Amino acid sequence: MAGIQHQLQVELGDRSYPIFIGQGLLGQQDLGQWVAGEQVLIVTNETVAPLYLEKARASFSGKQVDVVILPDGEFYKTWEVLNRIFDQLLEKRHTRKTTLVALGGGVVGDMTGFAAACYQRGVDFIQIPTTLLAQVDSSVGGKTGINHPRGKNMIGAFLQPRCVLIDTSTLETLPNRELSSGLAEVIKYGLIQDNQFLSWLEEHMDGLMALQSDTLAEAIFRSCQCKAAIVAADEREAGVRALLNLGHTFGHAIETYTGYAEWLHGEAVAAGMVMAADMSKRMGWLTYNDIDRITQLLVRARLPIRPPETMSPDDFYALMAVDKKNIDGALRLVLLHSLGDATVTAEFDPELLHLVLSAHQEAQE
Amino acid sequence: MAGIQHQLQVELGDRSYPIFIGQGLLGQQDLGQWVAGEQVLIVTNETVAPLYLEKARASFSGKQVDVVILPDGEFYKTWEVLNRIFDQLLEKRHTRKTTLVALGGGVVGDMTGFAAACYQRGVDFIQIPTTLLAQVDSSVGGKTGINHPRGKNMIGAFLQPRCVLIDTSTLETLPNRELSSGLAEVIKYGLIQDNQFLSWLEEHMDGLMALQSDTLAEAIFRSCQCKAAIVAADEREAGVRALLNLGHTFGHAIETYTGYAEWLHGEAVAAGMVMAADMSKRMGWLTYNDIDRITQLLVRARLPIRPPETMSPDDFYALMAVDKKNIDGALRLVLLHSLGDATVTAEFDPELLHLVLSAHQEAQE
Repeated sequence: MAGIQHQLQVELGDRSYPIFIGQGLLGQQDLGQWVAGEQVLIVTNETVAPLYLEKARASFSGKQVDVVILPDGEFYKTWEVLNRIFDQLLEKRHTRKTTLVALGGGVVGDMTGFAAACYQRGVDFIQIPTTLLAQVDSSVGGKTGINHPRGKNMIGAFLQPRCVLIDTSTLETLPNRELSSGLAEVIKYGLIQDNQFLSWLEEHMDGLMALQSDTLAEAIFRSCQCKAAIVAADEREAGVRALLNLGHTFGHAIETYTGYAEWLHGEAVAAGMVMAADMSKRMGWLTYNDIDRITQLLVRARLPIRPPETMSPDDFYALMAVDKKNIDGALRLVLLHSLGDATVTAEFDPELLHLVLSAHQEAQE
Repeated sequence: MAGIQHQLQVELGDRSYPIFIGQGLLGQQDLGQWVAGEQVLIVTNETVAPLYLEKARASFSGKQVDVVILPDGEFYKTWEVLNRIFDQLLEKRHTRKTTLVALGGGVVGDMTGFAAACYQRGVDFIQIPTTLLAQVDSSVGGKTGINHPRGKNMIGAFLQPRCVLIDTSTLETLPNRELSSGLAEVIKYGLIQDNQFLSWLEEHMDGLMALQSDTLAEAIFRSCQCKAAIVAADEREAGVRALLNLGHTFGHAIETYTGYAEWLHGEAVAAGMVMAADMSKRMGWLTYNDIDRITQLLVRARLPIRPPETMSPDDFYALMAVDKKNIDGALRLVLLHSLGDATVTAEFDPELLHLVLSAHQEAQE
């Protein structure tokens, strides 16, 4: 297909699918070949619809194309809002052969994927992620779901898309904070398994922040490659896939604490990665210099490096206790043996964790 | 295990599981070996809990056993009620290694299975069906889900249980209407693919209605065998599995029309099977004698053989249009070439269908 700069295949047997990356792909590409039947439902949100809905609609010419426009934000990743998708599918009489299309960020992707997983016990879906975060993270790997008042992403399913179309030009309309939020996950890939990519990011962070198209496409491609390799090895998160949660145990606690409203996902993950790095240093695995490299890269990406100052260790303990990585009640953390080498462990001194969870409050005093 | 009269294996590769059938199994059997972790959540309803909850609880000695008691009835197969299961799982901090146990009828089974499919993107579950309908139908095959105001079972997932325990003595406390409702599905197996079983049922219907334990165990075993073979051939309902829906297209329309409250599932299926048989006769496939055998067997099982008299052809058309078997808008019906030989088809004369849908109203005039 024309305009494609990078292409990769996520290898998952009969659930394998391609990711296409390029500038201006949306509207140029006819996506009809990825649709099994004659019906398409595009799910998007109030922010993205005015910008890209017509281009997306044009990608499915000749099909019955219906649309659902959701409110924008993690706050709306609820059952009530999900139900608007089911209402529309049933009202427009979509059958099992329908294809759902997620046009938007991670929230739209998660909800559309979960709706596809549940509607008539499972229909196809396609991802057109329009935020950096969704392009490098939530569009790869098939995790879908909604939030529960007691915990993020607690209700969901695994469902792989038929294909993913990443148009880097959608990032030109992305708010700066959202770009930074996506960069948190990009940096994460370097930290957990690719020291060379980490150095590349240190070299190209200014270009990424300036939205240089080729640099963005390269960063997205390398991030997707990294995630695709991990997902291919462990689709159901029985082992190595948990490494993708670096910073997320702390980060999810921050998001739940702040009601999914104040902090963007990547911002919470950034602060969480600093906490995971701090823990790793206290365990003797990382050096002061390593911590400096991490915090400097995050700061250059305009990301926070501390949790909310009002958030106490007890707040963290209560919210981390429901983390999906935990097994039979034991808290498990993703930590760094070194830069580019992560591990999941439940074996750590609780005293050290307490120091990590209280460090930001001491710093305020 | 002691007390097991029949045992069969549902063959689904790495999702294969056993079904144990016998009188008095519940409470005799330790089910701990089927639980991966240390946590169990038993989901049951207000009617079943006083009768069998303690016996079920005793089957998981040494584990953390929590309980959710739901209201009883298809009317409650909604997201709001499903959420009580999630609330309890999160409140009691159940991890990904938890096992959900469905103790009750089809509604409890469908909701518990769907909760297991979605909680943390999927945990284990075990079925202990206590109604005949659940024992012969919903506990085999992995269909789970909830209703949507616009259609039955529209939201759901496929998830196979780890094992199914069928204690025929639970049928002694089952209301007569519920027993009849289960017999509708038993008769269905004979009609769609087992003419010999149909003759066996004609011979043993009085024994089944009198709750003869060995006769019940035999009928349940043969029903499960029939369904297990079909599910093994077509887990995701791409083909032959649709035959299990004999009478269900009409039946689901009846259930939706009456708000899931007046008619039991098997009652609606019984009336639906007569309509499917009527259609098959009008297409020249069945004889008057075949129709007589079907209606007589249903009447002996104290099942209805007509839809609600107020329900018009237009009511049926509107409600059948959202049936999950439909492909690209075309209505598909399960019909009978002969007794014991069903087929799915979209090729029929709409005039004949109209006659079938209006016959019960003409009969009233």
